[in-house]
Amino acid sequence: MEQYYKLDKWHIIEHGFNPQKNEISESVFSIGNGYMGQRANFEEQYSGSSLQGSYLAGVYYPDKTRVGWWKNGYPSYFAKVLNSTNWIGIDIKINDCILDIAKGTLKDFKRVLNMKDGYLERSFTLVLENNNEIHVNSKRFISMTRGEIGAIHYTITPINFSGEITISPYLDGNVKNTDANYGETFWDEISKKAEPFEGYVMLKTKKLDFNICTYMTYELCKNGEIITPNVELLEKEKFISNTAKISCNKNDKIEIFKYVANTSSRYYEKDELVSITRKLSIKAKNDGFVNLLEEQSNAWKDKWEESDIVIEDDIAAQQGIRFNIFQLNQTYTGKDERLNIGPKGFTGEKYGGSTYWDTEAYCIPFFLSTAEPNVSKNLLLYRYKQLNKAIGNAEKLGFSNGAALYPMVTMNGEECHNEWEITFEEIHRNAAIAYAIYNYVNYTGDKTYIQEYGLEVLIAISRFWAQRVNFSKQKNKYVILGVTGPNEYENNINNNWYTNRMASWTLEYTIKAINYLKESNPDRLMDIMKKVNFKDDEISKWHDIIDNMYYPVCDKLGIFLQQEGYLDKEQILVKDLDKSNLPLNQNWSWDRILRSCFIKQADVLQGLYFLEDEYDINTIKNNFDFYEPRTVHESSLSPCIHSILASKIGNHDKAYEMYLRTSRLDIDNYNNDTCDGCHITSMAGTWMSIVHGFGGLRVRNNKLILNPFIPEHWKSYSFKIRFRGALLKISITNKYVNISNELNKDVIIEVYSKDYKLAGNSNIIIQR
Amino acid sequence: MEQYYKLDKWHIIEHGFNPQKNEISESVFSIGNGYMGQRANFEEQYSGSSLQGSYLAGVYYPDKTRVGWWKNGYPSYFAKVLNSTNWIGIDIKINDCILDIAKGTLKDFKRVLNMKDGYLERSFTLVLENNNEIHVNSKRFISMTRGEIGAIHYTITPINFSGEITISPYLDGNVKNTDANYGETFWDEISKKAEPFEGYVMLKTKKLDFNICTYMTYELCKNGEIITPNVELLEKEKFISNTAKISCNKNDKIEIFKYVANTSSRYYEKDELVSITRKLSIKAKNDGFVNLLEEQSNAWKDKWEESDIVIEDDIAAQQGIRFNIFQLNQTYTGKDERLNIGPKGFTGEKYGGSTYWDTEAYCIPFFLSTAEPNVSKNLLLYRYKQLNKAIGNAEKLGFSNGAALYPMVTMNGEECHNEWEITFEEIHRNAAIAYAIYNYVNYTGDKTYIQEYGLEVLIAISRFWAQRVNFSKQKNKYVILGVTGPNEYENNINNNWYTNRMASWTLEYTIKAINYLKESNPDRLMDIMKKVNFKDDEISKWHDIIDNMYYPVCDKLGIFLQQEGYLDKEQILVKDLDKSNLPLNQNWSWDRILRSCFIKQADVLQGLYFLEDEYDINTIKNNFDFYEPRTVHESSLSPCIHSILASKIGNHDKAYEMYLRTSRLDIDNYNNDTCDGCHITSMAGTWMSIVHGFGGLRVRNNKLILNPFIPEHWKSYSFKIRFRGALLKISITNKYVNISNELNKDVIIEVYSKDYKLAGNSNIIIQR
Repeated sequence: MEQYYKLDKWHIIEHGFNPQKNEISESVFSIGNGYMGQRANFEEQYSGSSLQGSYLAGVYYPDKTRVGWWKNGYPSYFAKVLNSTNWIGIDIKINDCILDIAKGTLKDFKRVLNMKDGYLERSFTLVLENNNEIHVNSKRFISMTRGEIGAIHYTITPINFSGEITISPYLDGNVKNTDANYGETFWDEISKKAEPFEGYVMLKTKKLDFNICTYMTYELCKNGEIITPNVELLEKEKFISNTAKISCNKNDKIEIFKYVANTSSRYYEKDELVSITRKLSIKAKNDGFVNLLEEQSNAWKDKWEESDIVIEDDIAAQQGIRFNIFQLNQTYTGKDERLNIGPKGFTGEKYGGSTYWDTEAYCIPFFLSTAEPNVSKNLLLYRYKQLNKAIGNAEKLGFSNGAALYPMVTMNGEECHNEWEITFEEIHRNAAIAYAIYNYVNYTGDKTYIQEYGLEVLIAISRFWAQRVNFSKQKNKYVILGVTGPNEYENNINNNWYTNRMASWTLEYTIKAINYLKESNPDRLMDIMKKVNFKDDEISKWHDIIDNMYYPVCDKLGIFLQQEGYLDKEQILVKDLDKSNLPLNQNWSWDRILRSCFIKQADVLQGLYFLEDEYDINTIKNNFDFYEPRTVHESSLSPCIHSILASKIGNHDKAYEMYLRTSRLDIDNYNNDTCDGCHITSMAGTWMSIVHGFGGLRVRNNKLILNPFIPEHWKSYSFKIRFRGALLKISITNKYVNISNELNKDVIIEVYSKDYKLAGNSNIIIQR
Repeated sequence: MEQYYKLDKWHIIEHGFNPQKNEISESVFSIGNGYMGQRANFEEQYSGSSLQGSYLAGVYYPDKTRVGWWKNGYPSYFAKVLNSTNWIGIDIKINDCILDIAKGTLKDFKRVLNMKDGYLERSFTLVLENNNEIHVNSKRFISMTRGEIGAIHYTITPINFSGEITISPYLDGNVKNTDANYGETFWDEISKKAEPFEGYVMLKTKKLDFNICTYMTYELCKNGEIITPNVELLEKEKFISNTAKISCNKNDKIEIFKYVANTSSRYYEKDELVSITRKLSIKAKNDGFVNLLEEQSNAWKDKWEESDIVIEDDIAAQQGIRFNIFQLNQTYTGKDERLNIGPKGFTGEKYGGSTYWDTEAYCIPFFLSTAEPNVSKNLLLYRYKQLNKAIGNAEKLGFSNGAALYPMVTMNGEECHNEWEITFEEIHRNAAIAYAIYNYVNYTGDKTYIQEYGLEVLIAISRFWAQRVNFSKQKNKYVILGVTGPNEYENNINNNWYTNRMASWTLEYTIKAINYLKESNPDRLMDIMKKVNFKDDEISKWHDIIDNMYYPVCDKLGIFLQQEGYLDKEQILVKDLDKSNLPLNQNWSWDRILRSCFIKQADVLQGLYFLEDEYDINTIKNNFDFYEPRTVHESSLSPCIHSILASKIGNHDKAYEMYLRTSRLDIDNYNNDTCDGCHITSMAGTWMSIVHGFGGLRVRNNKLILNPFIPEHWKSYSFKIRFRGALLKISITNKYVNISNELNKDVIIEVYSKDYKLAGNSNIIIQR
């Protein structure tokens, strides 16, 4: 943990350049718009360490995975998010000396992520090796209004010399993935063209035939006037550039405005890609950088209007939550139902840009409250549409009768990850997908989802659980053997409390859903049951499992046991561990982690969070007090759940500590892995820490419930939520809770156990 | 299981060609000589399915393993045995039609492995697509007396035509490994040369710089006379050939004798390789095929003289044991102490040709009895020399104070495998290495090994165990968490009975060894203790662990439990499983295998086999009767142990069934995987099934013990063993046990619990 960036309410600021931290900054200062993303690599050449990254949503590569230790049932590929054409590149020479901030003397380096207006800015002064001194400023953004457009404004000012500046804007498809095995490359060239002041590169993936086109146009200015010098054209394999030489005097202002459109065959016909991309790029150029940036600023103004959380008197906390909200909005816009939310978004290669249970367990609650219901519904439908593939996946593993096992990692419904302990055994993801249905219906009140889509998914998942348990004669109970729970620092364990409980809960909820339809729409129920070939005795089997599921507990400690045998481990607390051991996953071998008592992420606590209504406060407290000191939070998904539960049990200091940890995880590089990319999905958990944790927001029996507290040294905080047609702004101070209903829709809210009816377009102040 | 080859006492015979079984036959008919090996690929072109394989001992490639799911502590490479230059190749054209038995009409195909004389023969008649009919006979062998030499005699007879036969002997280094990831290749050319009637290719590995040279010379004959037609020379990348066109008449006999030397920089200086290899090849040519084959036959005669097992009246059993002994002798000769015994020997790529615990647990007993003690001692020293690397390996995993964890898979003492559940957790291999020291000392009586080498290894391994246990307050016992036992169908389990017991046994034996030296050579002990910085309290800790180790048991069933929780699994017997499920590892996904009760290989039984003196016969029987019906024997190492224990408890039918299974595992392709190569190390287990199982051979308190029985329908069987300077031939019939002492060394033998003193060069007949 370190505080490298300056504290600021609306900006992330790197002041002074630390090459060792460059890859971290490249992640943190990433920009994107839901369709594409770009790490904060430099436009000009840089010979220091850098993770180049430019990503297009949904464009991936099915990497061969059949290495030596392939196991029966593994998927045939591992989906890799691809680093695609470098579109930001502008090579600069100052009197024949290449501009590279790793060489020469750097002064006044500043990198700023402007979250309010949605752009990245960088400036520096450099004395080059030829003693020429220049000042550089670069601004760039990826447009929130024009999905394909990125724009750069790059300015160079000679400070101590007159001479020649050479500017070469380029597009380069000769990019690699650092996670490529055996140096494999992923792109083939289709076509390219360099012309004066424009050019393009069109590529295709070596497999799956994704076509992408990148088109650049640009303008050069000298002291504010457009100039059109002769340019030298260059075409190489997957590469095009223009080169202009500009003579300049001391203090001249040389500018380049580069407008790039990135398109893919996911959105346009292949044979039209070049012409469409060209049009988009030229349109952007014609509209101009200033206007585009104003569009961008307005678009972000609207985003913030809807989703900002304001914290008074705690800049670190304020910066943290805004960074999280900013990154979430950059990653997923809900506009394309084929997309989902990768754990690193567009900020790095890791986790392949694929869909994980993170979406259901962490992101859905965020979008339920901050967007129209159709956004969460789209995320649910993503899984509904993949039900047949989930059934096929379960069949591969020996299940039958329509049992579904959703993939742990997927691009298109197929499993595409192959660590056996995760792919085959982290089956709890199935329960999270069922829980998301419950969550959606509970929050929105949209029960039609059950009959239209939800029940089919619930039945298929319940069938999986009913086949996955086995009856232990020794215990006279149903057991679930050989699983990995959310705590991935245990593998292939027996009777993981969380998995057993969520399996049983799924069966309970599915039975409830069937009973609900039995009364509300028996014809539709009949249709579904016929479609899935449902047998009546399935329900009695489910009841038997619910009634006789085994749950490991320790009565003496009053806790649920993470898994059988957990107490045989040497019991050490994280605080008693020498700090040099942390993070464990970078310092300990895997077996040592596995046999230690240390927990990567909430596991029993995750279950208590999902199903809190079933447990009294003492049970939650006992478990929290036992597990929290053993948890190293090396999953980004961990601290938010701990924060929410700490709020629940009144441990406000711990709730605040965990909030800071989740909200500043990447800014402060807590887990020493931000260089790989930011932890996007857990950012939704950060939001939950405030809204569900500090704010105590719940929905029960169609009623919105709030039980807010305010961290000690905050003056106030406020957040907005959507609930059943209403848009509520909730502000909390030490003295009162102020709720304004900003739309014309009445709503009943329970605050501190008392109901309030809040009419549309009104507000209410409740004394605390 | 299938009986595809003809039963024969001295030969493996394939009569008629089944292309679907070709890769199996290529494994079974492999030839080798301890330095190199060659699968039974065809000399001429073959367009059907084939696994090309030519391997040189100790020449491997450190394949990069850092794929996506790399874990902390993994080794940096996975050692691959390399397919090296194809030296057998002879392209044939019959009047411009390529000879390829996949094309045309094949008649009278016969492939014979002559185990008595040590060569491979193949003959067939083929009507080619141009209707030319030919008869072909090919003989080849790899010399047991000249480590580098392979020789081929290939004969073609035109049956229905006169015309032109084109013969192109070649060397081809453009070979691949089928287990290469991402199509990676492993060889670079250094030099090559094609000259009339000779030529060479010299290559180097892309990493580690192993140089190999392959030199061929050859002669052509027509109707028994040497001919020297003009030859066309060809040199291509890593390839050289000669091409001769020979006009022939019907029934002419066209022959080629090809003599190839294969050398590597492991044995010769790089800059001398070409000239040395040329000399070896020319020498072989000058000596001639007939003489070389006679040498070969004599060498094998000597081998059989020493190690043959003769079984009367059971051809399947006889063929099985000879095949096993033949393959063992082809794989390891004990001449090069840097070599060890890969699980597939030279018969396939799988398992990387590396050293596993197979050597200590299975091969040592074979070599103890069939070779001079220095052969087993060399195998022990192989580990002694790698002790520092084993200590380094343990350090990587967080151990200290000189604790050693030997690698699970190694080429040079470094771990080179990376499935975490194996590499990090199959720690029982450490105990097998300790046990081999006990076994060697017990069998040979050579106690000096302890003070010279053994104790250092024992202390280092004991230190590992002492750190690897942890004390469970809950159980008030020491536990060993997170291991994989010999039964690899369970991963990351707690308290594996075998591992716990062998860990404790290692501590006991190490204390015994220390106490022995305390009395016999205290000065040497002092030196060792100083060298390893031994603290006295280490022994008291070891005693505490021995006294308080936790062993999972089921008192009700009277069995040791394979691991904690085993009885929570659904208990099904193999016999009740539909046969379509077998082998499980080809039909079930990994998680399903893991959570089933089915056992890959003896686990509790392996422990009872090693430590049988500690357990009464009822304990062994109870455990055997419980576990055997749950064992699928999908490890080749399993049936032999079951056979020996079945013999021990008097279950002779099961002992015989398991003997047939182990001895004919590859000939009959029991596990449907012989296509990958033969199971070489388990072949030593086959030998043990007869000698330790049927023969009941043991060594206790420096005395040889025999308790033979004879399988029901056998007339007699006999085997030879070396024991402390004596060479004994032991023959068993229904009526008597005949023991002849073939050397001039007295020996005391206990047979059926009665001691007999057998003078040198005498024999004794004991009534049964």
